[in-house]
Amino acid sequence: MHLLLLWAVAGLLRSTLACTAPEAVDVAIVGGGLAGLSAAVQLAAANKSVMVIEARDRVGGRVLNVELPNGGIIEAGAEFIGPTQDRVISLAAELGLGTFATYNTGENVLWHNGTRLTYSTAGPDVAPPIDTLSLIQLATALAELNSMALEINASAPWTHPRAVEWDSMTFGSWLDNATPLQSARFLFDVATTSIFAAEPRDLSLLYTLAYIAAAGNETTPGTFERLTATAGGAQDRRVTGGTQLLAVRLAERLGMEHISLSTPVRHIKRIDEGYKVTADGLALRAKQVVIAMSPPLAARIDYEPILPAIRDQLTQRLPMGSMGKAVALYDTPFWRDDGLNGQAASDTGIVRSTFDSSPEDGSYGAMLGFIAADQMRKFDAKSEDEIKAEVVKDFVNYFGPKAASPTSWVIQRWDNEKFSRGGPVAFAPPGVLTQHGPALQQGFEGIHFAGTESAPYWIGYMDGAIRSGERVAKEVLETS
Amino acid sequence: MHLLLLWAVAGLLRSTLACTAPEAVDVAIVGGGLAGLSAAVQLAAANKSVMVIEARDRVGGRVLNVELPNGGIIEAGAEFIGPTQDRVISLAAELGLGTFATYNTGENVLWHNGTRLTYSTAGPDVAPPIDTLSLIQLATALAELNSMALEINASAPWTHPRAVEWDSMTFGSWLDNATPLQSARFLFDVATTSIFAAEPRDLSLLYTLAYIAAAGNETTPGTFERLTATAGGAQDRRVTGGTQLLAVRLAERLGMEHISLSTPVRHIKRIDEGYKVTADGLALRAKQVVIAMSPPLAARIDYEPILPAIRDQLTQRLPMGSMGKAVALYDTPFWRDDGLNGQAASDTGIVRSTFDSSPEDGSYGAMLGFIAADQMRKFDAKSEDEIKAEVVKDFVNYFGPKAASPTSWVIQRWDNEKFSRGGPVAFAPPGVLTQHGPALQQGFEGIHFAGTESAPYWIGYMDGAIRSGERVAKEVLETS
Repeated sequence: MHLLLLWAVAGLLRSTLACTAPEAVDVAIVGGGLAGLSAAVQLAAANKSVMVIEARDRVGGRVLNVELPNGGIIEAGAEFIGPTQDRVISLAAELGLGTFATYNTGENVLWHNGTRLTYSTAGPDVAPPIDTLSLIQLATALAELNSMALEINASAPWTHPRAVEWDSMTFGSWLDNATPLQSARFLFDVATTSIFAAEPRDLSLLYTLAYIAAAGNETTPGTFERLTATAGGAQDRRVTGGTQLLAVRLAERLGMEHISLSTPVRHIKRIDEGYKVTADGLALRAKQVVIAMSPPLAARIDYEPILPAIRDQLTQRLPMGSMGKAVALYDTPFWRDDGLNGQAASDTGIVRSTFDSSPEDGSYGAMLGFIAADQMRKFDAKSEDEIKAEVVKDFVNYFGPKAASPTSWVIQRWDNEKFSRGGPVAFAPPGVLTQHGPALQQGFEGIHFAGTESAPYWIGYMDGAIRSGERVAKEVLETS
Repeated sequence: MHLLLLWAVAGLLRSTLACTAPEAVDVAIVGGGLAGLSAAVQLAAANKSVMVIEARDRVGGRVLNVELPNGGIIEAGAEFIGPTQDRVISLAAELGLGTFATYNTGENVLWHNGTRLTYSTAGPDVAPPIDTLSLIQLATALAELNSMALEINASAPWTHPRAVEWDSMTFGSWLDNATPLQSARFLFDVATTSIFAAEPRDLSLLYTLAYIAAAGNETTPGTFERLTATAGGAQDRRVTGGTQLLAVRLAERLGMEHISLSTPVRHIKRIDEGYKVTADGLALRAKQVVIAMSPPLAARIDYEPILPAIRDQLTQRLPMGSMGKAVALYDTPFWRDDGLNGQAASDTGIVRSTFDSSPEDGSYGAMLGFIAADQMRKFDAKSEDEIKAEVVKDFVNYFGPKAASPTSWVIQRWDNEKFSRGGPVAFAPPGVLTQHGPALQQGFEGIHFAGTESAPYWIGYMDGAIRSGERVAKEVLETS
């Protein structure tokens, strides 16, 4: 009985401490991905006390290194960086992280109508091997998309005079009209699913244009090609040691004492001096709160008082894409010897887009296949073995029989991750941006919103996450 | 100190009771709306022990009576019932509730291009007063919609051969093509916003067709007109005493000891014998669980283990419409004396669709204006006075100067309701039904899904909610 009493007293004291006098900080930051960590570092540098509250047992969010038995790493989440992604490039440099060019030597593979073709993307002749009429449709559609995107303010696409018109149709409907030839259309389908992990039918045309517009910076307009390209595009370079080091080193810079792991936030309640933030096993008071999460997961926190309708309904309207990465490991990057750069585009199969994810020194081979949108949904509930069997069929189609025998695998299904439930980004179906778009960035009475979805440039990318964190830090400082 | 110890021991005992030996039932039903209550009554009748766990301090969900100082009531949520809504009709009879015809005598008002016209909907000449070419477009488009809907299985629209095609475009894109004349189009816009509280641009064409197909029953195919019509349609009749009595009497039949109010469910965890359901101030064990909530709010519960990706991503992809009702009360239903039935359709204003919501005896006047979709979103953050000022302008346009002086108001904004965050129904943008639709109804390891969104007929209506509750009860009994 004495022991019970002691336990009870200890429990009482603990709960008293937790419930009535929680730790106080200037800013609570919900989410320890690149957005939250970037905000935290900026705020700490401005002498604000911060606490980053993360649901997972690690930092990084949608950025994740998987360690291999051979000592290497595979990036199971965001992997590539490229020109105009100024903030992630300078952050890598600040944090002492090297970068290297994504392997891009040799020919691309095109798998189309059951036939394998290879073609070079070097030099002036960069066209994929499809018929001339389809090529013309492809080029015309690309030019038109880029031209529309050029007029768009990526931070406020709803201000464009034709915003409602463009937000009233799917990107798929636009493509139905612009690229009726299947040989042109399928290349857009591959590109769309690889970029958004959503089908063209899922996306608002306006959102697609805004995403293209965001694939640049203050001085360089975004283009569709910058999203799809390896050299000179979003897949241009990689980070030595893996992209999660960006998050890990940011966390170290901040100090792990300012980060609480394995503490999913459940409740954010207005109190006199700001907010009380309650997570599993943690409660603290904060003058201001930063929500650095994807909108659909941010909706799962209980806010008291409730958030404005424009924000709540936004979070109901931006779903995560359906996304996985399958990486097959081989003793060598054998495709290089066959004159291939490891990049394939396909109109069939579970994997419709691939990249060479081998380490910088090429000491072993890593073939990355994106499993996206409809393909991922088909396999969300299947076993890893079933996925591997399908992926390997595709890899053999694209890279020959040597692809049949990987030594090991990394399979990452973001749809099945509790604290992601999809990836790489929450996208907008028609009607959302024009009505609810402003609530992506707009704070509300001391609650501020970050996350790559709310970025001014490179929405959906690590660069956008960092930009959003820096924007929100500025916002917090201006209002505190 | 003794007192502290006593408290501590009491707290320990309480938490021990709550955490390790919660009450046990056969079925926990999350949500005390018509779906949850219907399921509960059926299950109790089959000798299952049940507990309905409701977040609000009342039953009824999206069905709500507001009592007036004069003793009358206004239905702030679902209000009308009509032919083929067999289950709500027979439930009303079973529960001893009378019904009466919605007031429908006299002419309709059409407010179009700033001009007011009136027209009769009685007799063979039911056409609205628009130009002949527009009328032809309207009739042709209606016929085509009904013809497509006729081919659709409302419970499984994704099985139609053209499902992907129809799910790849918005209803707005389809209308752009079918009704280029504004005088035809605006009538579809008014109808769409009144039915869905969403704009045509928000909706998948396939979803729209499924909703039309669901506006019927096993023997009578659904039509668009049955959704929009008063006499003979979804607005045909009303329930004496108000529709919330359906929920209240169901709850009484079940027994209030089987209903827990003001207990929002936060966590549903798999345990050996089923699930542990934890709400604010309540925990219980259940062999099976019924989630009788709208999908976006069901997503805000923490499930352990996580639900399959197809279900979780469905809940990210079905947002609530944006919906309010403004009811102006007058000493008399004065429009009746002017030969008007109180029904207006308009191409401008905050209110674009009205109904006479006066009591059966016409002892006072109640003019109902729907505030829907874009119009509701404009006013979600405004004051009630600002809304009243706008509504009254519209009512004066439609019904003359006597409308300028209501004696009182009922304003209900579902978007701002914590446990609704929109209304009347969660709708599907393009791409959702074909990929995630099966997860509307499909249970998962003892967790079952009800709610009007998962109904086989009358999706979005009280009838659909009841049908979904009865379906899920059957499912539970079959698997227990």
